[in-house]
Amino acid sequence: MPRPYVRKLSAYEQEPVAWSIEGFAGGQTRPLSADPETGAATELLELPPGWRAPPGRFRAAIELLVVDGGLAIGEYRLGRFSYSYLPAGVTAGPWSAADGARVVWMPAGRQAFDAGRDSVPDAQRERWIPQIDSSALPWQPTITPGFPVGAMRKTLRVDPDTGAGTWLLGMLPQVRDTRREVHPTAEEGFTLLGESHSERGVSRAGEYFWRPPFIPHGPFHTDVGVLTFFRTDGPLRTDYSWPGP
Amino acid sequence: MPRPYVRKLSAYEQEPVAWSIEGFAGGQTRPLSADPETGAATELLELPPGWRAPPGRFRAAIELLVVDGGLAIGEYRLGRFSYSYLPAGVTAGPWSAADGARVVWMPAGRQAFDAGRDSVPDAQRERWIPQIDSSALPWQPTITPGFPVGAMRKTLRVDPDTGAGTWLLGMLPQVRDTRREVHPTAEEGFTLLGESHSERGVSRAGEYFWRPPFIPHGPFHTDVGVLTFFRTDGPLRTDYSWPGP
Amino acid sequence: MPRPYVRKLSAYEQEPVAWSIEGFAGGQTRPLSADPETGAATELLELPPGWRAPPGRFRAAIELLVVDGGLAIGEYRLGRFSYSYLPAGVTAGPWSAADGARVVWMPAGRQAFDAGRDSVPDAQRERWIPQIDSSALPWQPTITPGFPVGAMRKTLRVDPDTGAGTWLLGMLPQVRDTRREVHPTAEEGFTLLGESHSERGVSRAGEYFWRPPFIPHGPFHTDVGVLTFFRTDGPLRTDYSWPGP
Amino acid sequence: MPRPYVRKLSAYEQEPVAWSIEGFAGGQTRPLSADPETGAATELLELPPGWRAPPGRFRAAIELLVVDGGLAIGEYRLGRFSYSYLPAGVTAGPWSAADGARVVWMPAGRQAFDAGRDSVPDAQRERWIPQIDSSALPWQPTITPGFPVGAMRKTLRVDPDTGAGTWLLGMLPQVRDTRREVHPTAEEGFTLLGESHSERGVSRAGEYFWRPPFIPHGPFHTDVGVLTFFRTDGPLRTDYSWPGP
Amino acid sequence: MPRPYVRKLSAYEQEPVAWSIEGFAGGQTRPLSADPETGAATELLELPPGWRAPPGRFRAAIELLVVDGGLAIGEYRLGRFSYSYLPAGVTAGPWSAADGARVVWMPAGRQAFDAGRDSVPDAQRERWIPQIDSSALPWQPTITPGFPVGAMRKTLRVDPDTGAGTWLLGMLPQVRDTRREVHPTAEEGFTLLGESHSERGVSRAGEYFWRPPFIPHGPFHTDVGVLTFFRTDGPLRTDYSWPGP
Amino acid sequence: MPRPYVRKLSAYEQEPVAWSIEGFAGGQTRPLSADPETGAATELLELPPGWRAPPGRFRAAIELLVVDGGLAIGEYRLGRFSYSYLPAGVTAGPWSAADGARVVWMPAGRQAFDAGRDSVPDAQRERWIPQIDSSALPWQPTITPGFPVGAMRKTLRVDPDTGAGTWLLGMLPQVRDTRREVHPTAEEGFTLLGESHSERGVSRAGEYFWRPPFIPHGPFHTDVGVLTFFRTDGPLRTDYSWPGP
Amino acid sequence: MPRPYVRKLSAYEQEPVAWSIEGFAGGQTRPLSADPETGAATELLELPPGWRAPPGRFRAAIELLVVDGGLAIGEYRLGRFSYSYLPAGVTAGPWSAADGARVVWMPAGRQAFDAGRDSVPDAQRERWIPQIDSSALPWQPTITPGFPVGAMRKTLRVDPDTGAGTWLLGMLPQVRDTRREVHPTAEEGFTLLGESHSERGVSRAGEYFWRPPFIPHGPFHTDVGVLTFFRTDGPLRTDYSWPGP
Amino acid sequence: MPRPYVRKLSAYEQEPVAWSIEGFAGGQTRPLSADPETGAATELLELPPGWRAPPGRFRAAIELLVVDGGLAIGEYRLGRFSYSYLPAGVTAGPWSAADGARVVWMPAGRQAFDAGRDSVPDAQRERWIPQIDSSALPWQPTITPGFPVGAMRKTLRVDPDTGAGTWLLGMLPQVRDTRREVHPTAEEGFTLLGESHSERGVSRAGEYFWRPPFIPHGPFHTDVGVLTFFRTDGPLRTDYSWPGP
Repeated sequence: MPRPYVRKLSAYEQEPVAWSIEGFAGGQTRPLSADPETGAATELLELPPGWRAPPGRFRAAIELLVVDGGLAIGEYRLGRFSYSYLPAGVTAGPWSAADGARVVWMPAGRQAFDAGRDSVPDAQRERWIPQIDSSALPWQPTITPGFPVGAMRKTLRVDPDTGAGTWLLGMLPQVRDTRREVHPTAEEGFTLLGESHSERGVSRAGEYFWRPPFIPHGPFHTDVGVLTFFRTDGPLRTDYSWPGP
Repeated sequence: MPRPYVRKLSAYEQEPVAWSIEGFAGGQTRPLSADPETGAATELLELPPGWRAPPGRFRAAIELLVVDGGLAIGEYRLGRFSYSYLPAGVTAGPWSAADGARVVWMPAGRQAFDAGRDSVPDAQRERWIPQIDSSALPWQPTITPGFPVGAMRKTLRVDPDTGAGTWLLGMLPQVRDTRREVHPTAEEGFTLLGESHSERGVSRAGEYFWRPPFIPHGPFHTDVGVLTFFRTDGPLRTDYSWPGP
Repeated sequence: MPRPYVRKLSAYEQEPVAWSIEGFAGGQTRPLSADPETGAATELLELPPGWRAPPGRFRAAIELLVVDGGLAIGEYRLGRFSYSYLPAGVTAGPWSAADGARVVWMPAGRQAFDAGRDSVPDAQRERWIPQIDSSALPWQPTITPGFPVGAMRKTLRVDPDTGAGTWLLGMLPQVRDTRREVHPTAEEGFTLLGESHSERGVSRAGEYFWRPPFIPHGPFHTDVGVLTFFRTDGPLRTDYSWPGP
Repeated sequence: MPRPYVRKLSAYEQEPVAWSIEGFAGGQTRPLSADPETGAATELLELPPGWRAPPGRFRAAIELLVVDGGLAIGEYRLGRFSYSYLPAGVTAGPWSAADGARVVWMPAGRQAFDAGRDSVPDAQRERWIPQIDSSALPWQPTITPGFPVGAMRKTLRVDPDTGAGTWLLGMLPQVRDTRREVHPTAEEGFTLLGESHSERGVSRAGEYFWRPPFIPHGPFHTDVGVLTFFRTDGPLRTDYSWPGP
Repeated sequence: MPRPYVRKLSAYEQEPVAWSIEGFAGGQTRPLSADPETGAATELLELPPGWRAPPGRFRAAIELLVVDGGLAIGEYRLGRFSYSYLPAGVTAGPWSAADGARVVWMPAGRQAFDAGRDSVPDAQRERWIPQIDSSALPWQPTITPGFPVGAMRKTLRVDPDTGAGTWLLGMLPQVRDTRREVHPTAEEGFTLLGESHSERGVSRAGEYFWRPPFIPHGPFHTDVGVLTFFRTDGPLRTDYSWPGP
Repeated sequence: MPRPYVRKLSAYEQEPVAWSIEGFAGGQTRPLSADPETGAATELLELPPGWRAPPGRFRAAIELLVVDGGLAIGEYRLGRFSYSYLPAGVTAGPWSAADGARVVWMPAGRQAFDAGRDSVPDAQRERWIPQIDSSALPWQPTITPGFPVGAMRKTLRVDPDTGAGTWLLGMLPQVRDTRREVHPTAEEGFTLLGESHSERGVSRAGEYFWRPPFIPHGPFHTDVGVLTFFRTDGPLRTDYSWPGP
Repeated sequence: MPRPYVRKLSAYEQEPVAWSIEGFAGGQTRPLSADPETGAATELLELPPGWRAPPGRFRAAIELLVVDGGLAIGEYRLGRFSYSYLPAGVTAGPWSAADGARVVWMPAGRQAFDAGRDSVPDAQRERWIPQIDSSALPWQPTITPGFPVGAMRKTLRVDPDTGAGTWLLGMLPQVRDTRREVHPTAEEGFTLLGESHSERGVSRAGEYFWRPPFIPHGPFHTDVGVLTFFRTDGPLRTDYSWPGP
Repeated sequence: MPRPYVRKLSAYEQEPVAWSIEGFAGGQTRPLSADPETGAATELLELPPGWRAPPGRFRAAIELLVVDGGLAIGEYRLGRFSYSYLPAGVTAGPWSAADGARVVWMPAGRQAFDAGRDSVPDAQRERWIPQIDSSALPWQPTITPGFPVGAMRKTLRVDPDTGAGTWLLGMLPQVRDTRREVHPTAEEGFTLLGESHSERGVSRAGEYFWRPPFIPHGPFHTDVGVLTFFRTDGPLRTDYSWPGP
């Protein structure tokens, strides 16, 4: 998944560009990272009040997280920090954002849309997640042995084929890890709330990174607590070392 | 599994119709839901006192739950809330209901019977469950993270190929979940005892539903406790959101 | 606590008698058990719609459980299965039952009331429990080693001096204990919901007993589940044996 | 502990008044709550850069929490969210705040200071807590059965005589309790970080309350997470009910 | 509790002697150990078929364990491995052994009996254990840290004043501890079933010991499993060492 | 796996017959059960003192449990209750029983032996278990939910292809299960120590059964404890019901 | 317990001085710390081969830990890292060290010895610990919340009156705590094995400290693992902060 | 995996031999074990100060553990007890050891190096572990049921294809296992710190063994604690027996 390394950027400071998917909708988006080869990307979509799109299906899977406002997909009404996963070829919609919305939009490949009410016959409809309101999920223990106490996670999705994961990580104030981490997978993160400190400096709401595999990072700490949206492209493994002098 | 959506009905208020499987038996049944294409169905069978049927095998698997009276299948004597799973082609019987019985009868396909004492050679006999008396099973923790405390389950079967599940869910009085659920599988339920409240109104013994995948439901609560028989057609996954206004 | 043994009675079939506490209120009550020496008692009070009583304090502690309707004590509004403990000399009220109420009323001694807004100086006000709505308590594990799985409790009060306890015990359907129990304390129980079977026969809502120490009882089982309100006059200890032939 | 009820105030909006303890130091303070009879109080002290006070002992115990800046007491250097408990008659100091400090200052009685290096002979020196840096404490489970998952605590002190407690409560974003609570003890709280919502409205850093026993409060929730400093004057017991309509 | 050290004896090989308690009953007994000063003792009583004694009370507490046959004490019918504790001054009975019985009889002091149906006024009646049928108790974990896995206990009594304990210890086959133990309390044991090996040689049913405090013992193992009845005269503490060469 | 049903027999009462495997050894054996088609069997081998056999390999896997005496296989010395699994084609030995031995001998098929020191090239040597001395294994929890407390197991082998299992089950005295069990697998058992009671009557050391799938059995209890060697031919699943009247 | 602060010393480098207790024995000792007022002390006793002392009792309690060689006290033979506690007035002995021994000797007060075989009548004999061989104790979890994983303890004694504790603390290699600790009790430590690093520098076998209450210490780490003998004079409480710059 | 059995050797006493891999580097190495057929080996490499090698890839996977000094591989700086796994065909480097290093070097096959910055296209790059500093890993429970308490592990790698494992095992002082073990896999060990005793005698830092499958070993104990580096070539299974006389 050869996206260029995005060490750190502030999503809200990215210049918006025109966004359009034929037959679906247009508008503005702030590109965060993209794979020029496959078209897989992460962007911050800004849907104006009254935005609408017809029902239909995408040719590559879409993951999305609403970060502000509200988005209706068919009968499902996604508010702040609500998540959806739409497999390739599964139909959904109509789409609308009566009061506008900001959405982290994460297509798994080149975006193409086919309007209509029917899913492609062999689409993996049972993998569809029409809506998870993260605030309705219970906080759960983290999965990395030795991860600091005071951090908890809400798992949104684990891909049964690749082990790729999508989750929220919450940390209470005063959580600290003095070690350096390396993962064998790419990892991207979007800070939703609070503030944390790491080798990348301070991260606040809207901070984004897409880090290729095997880039050491950390240590980190948060004085005031932090909520971050994470994705990997394979099973999360964390190897630890101490930061250099 | 395209059965039509049965949002809610009272099994005992359904009109009984004639029931017969050639070579097996006849009588009356109350249809609850059915897949017109495959013949898979759920019905409430009413076996009169003295009912009998010969030993033999079905061409599609049968699940059944006795809800009143008693049913003998060969040497196995199934009383109230006893369960059986008979794989396609596995022989069982003779069948009888000396004092009559009401049985939730759940064929996995078009019903056809071949009398005889031998199973089909490649029948999956090791999957046969001749009898589980649910009252002899220990109550076990529920399997959904964050499910309300005070609910417990008795697992009756998990299909090793599809992950489809069959279980009893018991809830103590005063159990409540204020969230809305969505499953990627069809789910059907038959209330056995007690009373619960949900977006479908009040449910008491005999209430039945067959819900297609991705239909939001909930919240629910029970003031007096409730015992429900559940089935899904795939692995149970529960996505949560809050009910709309 | 030498109340006469009440093996089993149906509270709702007891003949109501006049109830009055000077300066407080009058009405009707159904006596369930009483200690003729100390005046400690358990009764089922029936408060008519519009019932009222002034603020004030009792000379002996009062425990109460609302079983129907609603009772307001000062700012606290107790609905069905709400509980209160009022220590001797602690003032509370005014009292009212706008729509009427049925209340299990459990004075710890002879009932006498002093109207007024001040508590007695050395009253143990920190022991006051103005209101527990049992439906807002989480179900918790039972405390007796080896008690059947499927039973859970909601602790309402434990007396720090005597170890006397007050709690709700809920059992899921199909819970069964084949043993006989003996306690070194008196125990009283009032069935709130469901149905259980024991050596005393069937118990349904309104069934009451007051059992002196060292009377063997059991085995018991419940087919449909049961919710019972319990009190002991000391720490609960359970000694087990098998029922005789 | 008859302090007047402080339902909600913003500490930083309180008018500062002159503060002086003879022989110790002067300056400014923002009174938050006080018991006119005993002199026990909670105030927000503002120590200017360069503030100093000699070593000595107080005639009533002092609890303090640094909320900004730094405070040196003898060899102990207390930074942000550091806590100290100084029993009556135990000597400590000299005191200084080189860069100034804001301190929640909680004397247990009328403030009087005796300079000197010796503790009173029978002072309970083993109860002295010269310094806890809360950020060095591990987050621990909460102690109330049924408290929402996602909340954790850091215990600062439990009084062995009275059971009075002092602790930090941290909540991750999206934590919610829909119930109403009552405690038999007075409780005071000072919001340190984040934001929560309750029947008192929104609470942000600097929000303070001192609530007498038996005042119902709640429900509450936090969207963004919250860190609060709490004290009770006796063992914490929480009785639950549902909020009224 | 200065009983002479009984290192090991076989109860069934002890010579029976005449047994009588004035006003209660006579018969035969096999003395196992005794404190000549206080009269506290452990003996193996043999009650012939048809044995009877009137109701009444003892002046010193009695513990007993039925090892064969049956014993009725009032309404309580004690079979094999049933236990009872009768505090001093608490009345019980009438007593009978219709088919005879062998009973481990353990008076806490000089035996004296007062016939009658009333307990002494200040007798600790709430400590009475009329009957525990040990086979109705659940097996529980042992209480000594590091005790071998495969051993479990059934607690019969813990004295709230002295910490003295009475329990059954069961060990599965192949349980082994290679260490040496010392206790600060006297300990006595009576092997009920199976066989174990220790520094005392082989122990089978009927083996008895009364060991003063601070006598090292062990290691032990059992090839076939063993069930032993134990008593201490204070809280059990186990100090470990390795056996000498 | 069509061995004839062996409901119950006493191994030690079976008539010994001549035993010989060409090139390996001869002697006597007591047949317990056998599959006439495949040659899979369970027998009680009696090896006289001084018995010897050369190193080599079997054409079908062998499981064995020494129940008396000792057996040396190459450098491994198996004593009482030691277990070995020898995959087909894996060479082992030389074999000897200096002092004689009794061995439960369980070939997976027709017995044929090829002398020599080399294993067959594709033999599954990593599945070889040359020796487990069961007395050196820790007791572990049982794996069936709701199985009685007081029972523990020592797992000897689980077949990675079929899920077939071999284990010891130990029960403390007074363990009891009042239910009836059914398994979808054949199960065989050989009582090693102690005594249990079931619908088959009393079982003591040497009792053997081979039960086809789906034969109900139970309830059972043990007064004195019991140790049993078990095998199934597939994954153990236990379905429960109550015994009929 | 006003012993002077011993920040760090190497026991083996202390100058030995003459040691004698009248009527008991003489020899050499290396004083480590002492309370000049009460006579309580910690010293490293060196007993030459063949050393002997008669049986008798001390007027103040003695704790001791053998660090080299062997010590016999009556029938108890204490080897390396064996511990004993002898309450005041309890008789023990005769004493001998056939091959010599080094012993950490910790009298609770002025040392005085009365030869003889009888304990003082009211001596707390049940508190006597004649011998714990620490290598026969199981390693147990540490008791301080948040203490680093990889450290475990073996509790030797907890004083029931004062809460004073004596224990071994073992740490695996690579254990590290970056925080600073303060205790309200005096603490002393004697390094037995391995090596650790702290603000006191490197500690190896024989390193000793006696630290008054409220002296901050830490952080610490061990690269190679460490075993330390610890004592406090009251209940251990640990308050954490971060080390200063 | 037919390396010759290395029962025990001291790595530091092995004669160093010339080491060179064409295009990579030369120097000295001490061979510990090797498979003459595949070239898989374990050796103790000694890199002189200033050692360097270019970036590139190996044709067989390399595992390495730094035991002294430091090794830089590209941006990763491995200090004492740091570990790396480099899959075949994955490029890494440049390599350097500014201050020299001793490294346990474990190629999975014949060593051959191709300089360059690109990995082979189908190399399993996601299995690369560039660096684990073992001192930054948390100690975790051991995985063998019944393994002695006081031992913990740090897992470095588990091969997803073969189950082969690499880990550190730490034991506190006084850990002991009296049993004999057998594994179905080859196992090699390199003692890093401390000292242990087994049937091979004493092991101290630098002790090495490579043991073929099915060789019994043990018992073992450690008086002072021990840290060992272990590898197996398949899933670890441990079969226990008692050591012979």
